[in-house]
Amino acid sequence: MSAAQIEFFWDSASPYTYLAATQIEQLAARHGATVRWRPFLLGKAFEATGNRAPASVPVKGKYLFGDLQLWARHYGVPLKFPSVFPVASLGSLRVACALPEADVARWAQAVMHAYWAENQDIGQPQALAQIATDLGLDSDALLAKTQTPAVKEALKANTDEAIRRGVFGAPTFFVGEQMFWGNDRLELLDAYLGGRLG
Amino acid sequence: MSAAQIEFFWDSASPYTYLAATQIEQLAARHGATVRWRPFLLGKAFEATGNRAPASVPVKGKYLFGDLQLWARHYGVPLKFPSVFPVASLGSLRVACALPEADVARWAQAVMHAYWAENQDIGQPQALAQIATDLGLDSDALLAKTQTPAVKEALKANTDEAIRRGVFGAPTFFVGEQMFWGNDRLELLDAYLGGRLG
Repeated sequence: MSAAQIEFFWDSASPYTYLAATQIEQLAARHGATVRWRPFLLGKAFEATGNRAPASVPVKGKYLFGDLQLWARHYGVPLKFPSVFPVASLGSLRVACALPEADVARWAQAVMHAYWAENQDIGQPQALAQIATDLGLDSDALLAKTQTPAVKEALKANTDEAIRRGVFGAPTFFVGEQMFWGNDRLELLDAYLGGRLG
Repeated sequence: MSAAQIEFFWDSASPYTYLAATQIEQLAARHGATVRWRPFLLGKAFEATGNRAPASVPVKGKYLFGDLQLWARHYGVPLKFPSVFPVASLGSLRVACALPEADVARWAQAVMHAYWAENQDIGQPQALAQIATDLGLDSDALLAKTQTPAVKEALKANTDEAIRRGVFGAPTFFVGEQMFWGNDRLELLDAYLGGRLG
């Protein structure tokens, strides 16, 4: 069998996606697998499926707030709940669609770190420009490109495809057509790639 | 520190509770902890909190159906989705409240195995009577006791307490006041008991 590919549908607005994003490359590497980072609009998937953000149940939101901190400690990664939440993630996702495939992973990781660990408002173009510059990218050209029909369409196509394939939340991973939903399914994804769920 | 106690709020109608029930005693034993099995009515917690069963979002229900099978394979336990679902779990929970504390764990495990692995309709008193008999319990006395006000009140008290402490789903675990929701939080519970979440 050739090396497995993990498709990773991510939206930078999702805290559990940030957590999973800090782990997925190491997980893939353990199995000689690759990760294809696929930006999509989680809100559209909620709309299309009738799903809703977990914090829409108040007592659940309160629990999950603490749960996120436990996961961050478990992984040994920083997490600071942002002052602007929810955030307009559209721009950050369009930047991902404007980049060459090889740059998407580090963009995604940088933009989610900025939002979920450094409390930067990634809904602001200036914040995105600074992150791009820090990564050595041409931020002016990149942000201009996010306004082109091709880039807008690419994000829409990813989102439509995700919904068509059964995505209703984030993060969502696929290995072939086997879907895994949630940071808390990395354990199963790991077992699956290790051939232990045959 | 004295040995930790894990309070385990369970409702036999919940498939993820069944999965967690197959794992929790070994997990506790690894840490020298004990498990207090506490029956409660999940439906009442849904009502009180505005939470709802995950399968109320159709595409989520479809995913979770397959997800349950992956977890069962991951744990190496049988799971056969029951033909009667949802089931009336009230009787099975009242039996748990009628038993001496020392018998609750094996009752819970037996009744969930009957429903989730053997497709028995545990909403039927005859099924409960047979499970009790197989465990060497006096099934007639036990089922009679489930009709007493004290037993009915004990289940209601557990349910009220769970809701008061923030329970909105099942399975839910507590170590002191630290709450863990979901079979998929056993990983965090394990880390917590191991002192790795500081």
